[in-house]
Amino acid sequence: MYQYKDDSLMLHNDLYQINMAESYWYDNVHERKAVFDLYFRKMPFDSGYAVFNGLRRVIQFIEKFHFTESDIEYLRSIGYKEDFLDYLKDLRFTGSIRAMEEGEVCFNNEPLLRVEAPLIQAQLIETILLNVVNFHTLISTKASRIKQVAPNDTLMEFGTRRAQEEDAALWGARAAIIGGFDSTSNVRAGKLFGIPVSGTHAHAFVQTYGDEYIAFKKYAERHKDCVFLVDTFHTLKSGVPSAIQVAKELGDKINFIGIRLDSGDIAYLSKKARQMLDDAGFTDAKIIASNDLDEQTIMSLKAQGAKVDSWGIGTKLITGNDQPALGAVYKLVAVEDENGEYQDRIKLSNNAEKVTTPGKKNVYRIINKKTGKAEGDYITLAYENPDDEKPLKLFHPVHTYKSKTVKSFDAIDLHKDIYKDGKLVYDLPDEKTAQKFLESNLSHLWEENKRFLNPQEYPVDLSQACWDNKQQKIFEVAENVKEMEERHE
Amino acid sequence: MYQYKDDSLMLHNDLYQINMAESYWYDNVHERKAVFDLYFRKMPFDSGYAVFNGLRRVIQFIEKFHFTESDIEYLRSIGYKEDFLDYLKDLRFTGSIRAMEEGEVCFNNEPLLRVEAPLIQAQLIETILLNVVNFHTLISTKASRIKQVAPNDTLMEFGTRRAQEEDAALWGARAAIIGGFDSTSNVRAGKLFGIPVSGTHAHAFVQTYGDEYIAFKKYAERHKDCVFLVDTFHTLKSGVPSAIQVAKELGDKINFIGIRLDSGDIAYLSKKARQMLDDAGFTDAKIIASNDLDEQTIMSLKAQGAKVDSWGIGTKLITGNDQPALGAVYKLVAVEDENGEYQDRIKLSNNAEKVTTPGKKNVYRIINKKTGKAEGDYITLAYENPDDEKPLKLFHPVHTYKSKTVKSFDAIDLHKDIYKDGKLVYDLPDEKTAQKFLESNLSHLWEENKRFLNPQEYPVDLSQACWDNKQQKIFEVAENVKEMEERHE
Repeated sequence: MYQYKDDSLMLHNDLYQINMAESYWYDNVHERKAVFDLYFRKMPFDSGYAVFNGLRRVIQFIEKFHFTESDIEYLRSIGYKEDFLDYLKDLRFTGSIRAMEEGEVCFNNEPLLRVEAPLIQAQLIETILLNVVNFHTLISTKASRIKQVAPNDTLMEFGTRRAQEEDAALWGARAAIIGGFDSTSNVRAGKLFGIPVSGTHAHAFVQTYGDEYIAFKKYAERHKDCVFLVDTFHTLKSGVPSAIQVAKELGDKINFIGIRLDSGDIAYLSKKARQMLDDAGFTDAKIIASNDLDEQTIMSLKAQGAKVDSWGIGTKLITGNDQPALGAVYKLVAVEDENGEYQDRIKLSNNAEKVTTPGKKNVYRIINKKTGKAEGDYITLAYENPDDEKPLKLFHPVHTYKSKTVKSFDAIDLHKDIYKDGKLVYDLPDEKTAQKFLESNLSHLWEENKRFLNPQEYPVDLSQACWDNKQQKIFEVAENVKEMEERHE
Repeated sequence: MYQYKDDSLMLHNDLYQINMAESYWYDNVHERKAVFDLYFRKMPFDSGYAVFNGLRRVIQFIEKFHFTESDIEYLRSIGYKEDFLDYLKDLRFTGSIRAMEEGEVCFNNEPLLRVEAPLIQAQLIETILLNVVNFHTLISTKASRIKQVAPNDTLMEFGTRRAQEEDAALWGARAAIIGGFDSTSNVRAGKLFGIPVSGTHAHAFVQTYGDEYIAFKKYAERHKDCVFLVDTFHTLKSGVPSAIQVAKELGDKINFIGIRLDSGDIAYLSKKARQMLDDAGFTDAKIIASNDLDEQTIMSLKAQGAKVDSWGIGTKLITGNDQPALGAVYKLVAVEDENGEYQDRIKLSNNAEKVTTPGKKNVYRIINKKTGKAEGDYITLAYENPDDEKPLKLFHPVHTYKSKTVKSFDAIDLHKDIYKDGKLVYDLPDEKTAQKFLESNLSHLWEENKRFLNPQEYPVDLSQACWDNKQQKIFEVAENVKEMEERHE
């Protein structure tokens, strides 16, 4: 890795992107503008909503969009020719990107992000955009789901050691904060993003001293804020009593925050430990639990009356355990023809839900003025303005008989301009702001959409014009296929 | 990220590591040597074996083990005091690391890697070691499992867009190669690791031209090696016929490698496409399949007679889909006392399998000289030499009645010296060599251990001395807990 001082992320690309780029360039269509939508097809974790995230990293990449010398040298070494490499050397990003803001609530089959750029550039940023948005959105969604089941508890992200390599740990920590977490154990995430960090000591510390009482006391000698990990030898017989003893002996000299349970039956142990702490007069001491937790286990522990104030959540958050990939795709929806006019494009599939929605589009959230709640998201062709159409008829894009009419509403454009003609025009809010933005977005959803098991499906509908355009393109492609078939007979 | 020119991975650490380090330092026990084992408790994917990987990244980190100015500045900003920060500034790694080589076959509950270092250093490298080894080993294992079900096919890693951020894509690509894959789509992995890259074009390319015949021809104009993606509109009616037409028209001008199927029923489509290619005289043309594949789907497709020569595997490989975290841990097993003598350390748990195995240990593979096959792995205390004990009695560490005696065997030390007293003493083989090393290691396993569903459990046993030592420590801790309990009554 370190053999190249000028290594960049430009080659963090699937090889086919470079091959397509070369063909476009050779055919001289590379500068034609194209529109791509980035979206996912299926709600992650069967969740009722997802949380968009990834812009910080995307912007970081676009700002450095530029093949370095060692990138070019490598491409040369695997056979690309000089004329094309000469072109790549000077390539900069000149396109436009519109996207949701970090912390926006989002759903399947709506564009989270739209790229409008010369074909070759749009193609060369695909892989990294997907790589980033897929992961960041997945983890913010998971974090938000956990926050939903423990809205008043402290949530700490503890996943670095189980994350899928270093970036996942770092950016996953950030994604957790945006999703509603209070802190991370990852110190570098604290350094780079200014987010709160937390953690005290591990089992090894107790093992080193061979005795909990001594270990806790040693820790307290240098650290005012004390959370003692009580399950190295025996939680209730030695761990909790030792913590209480040290807290009593040191009194005001330390800030005895509480204890951490990392194994065993958390419901049982937390109730017992709570009683012991209360009996000793430490009614304010917190109980922190960790050990393979997620929204399911927390919900179950709470149902059993576990006395836990704070949760340390690692593996299952940082990997999105039950669905480790969001599966977002990036699809061409329009491309300029030789006259500079956009031609809408579609991709068919045996699976109906994999057919793309052609055309340059916008996406609006329809907020009912009376209730303040979201009636659904509404995808239009770019020239449409849903505000002009009051009342607005919303209908299901597949089961079209399902429809409703909304009269008094605000149509909120969910996309912000991030890049315009290659220029960054967006001022990225910090993580805390994104977290608050998410809270406010969630307040517009009905509880039924936020339920963590079997939520009510949130409507993501196409405008009539958008729907008609899609049917027309499907028809046209079917005609072409027929022609092609005849040609080959 | 880019605000710090001197940013390092030293703070890629759980906060508690720094807090423990500070306490050790303050208590002046930080330079006492400690021994930590890194191991996992449960076989990933219920696999019969796993594939160790991660050394390249670990070495990269250790070589740069050094807090930079901005690291120290951040620690200061969150409250660490000058005296401790002064100590950290000059800290370098002076410890020893023994580990399996990349591509070694490994199992649960045996040390993959052993650190022997001043306590403070051993603690400060824990998080990153786990983060790296967990992911690299997981993906190499998954890749190897896929290789087992398609030993004679070409395997291509296509997962970058679905990987959990950039490092996961890059190092996951490398892990796939070590596990037995032939190439990756990630160009940067090709650049940095010198591994083969592959890929031709995507659906967007066909959509741009709106017609498969034209698109394939455009691709072939600039690229000699052609794999045409045939499922943008209709696989059998337009995709495959167009590919054949272009291949016929261009003849020797191109190297028509074959076609790629990316959706639909791969078993059905591949058989039909094979017939069409054969009928057109392209009997050497390959059929490549992609689309959410893993060892299960490949096995099932093969059982149905799918005519696929080459597999492009993304999401489910690069995320370790069915188990996205290996769950390796790093446990203190011995620490020097005030006299410089090692005291073995244990951690108890309600769950018997979570009790650690104390003491500084080695791990040997017992190869039967007659069969050339592995009889099991054998964990000894460091001073033991299993070669001295012929015949060797192997017994199950929990169900001790299960035992066998081996007479004629080689005991292969599975650990190599990587660092000795802070000095890198290991010359890391390249990825291709690690891949071959894995093949050779697998050849020592019985087929029963390699079966991809319900494999026979491979024995990982403790020597008598190691087992006795563990029982003794359990007894001692139980006595201590009793004492502690009495103290608090």
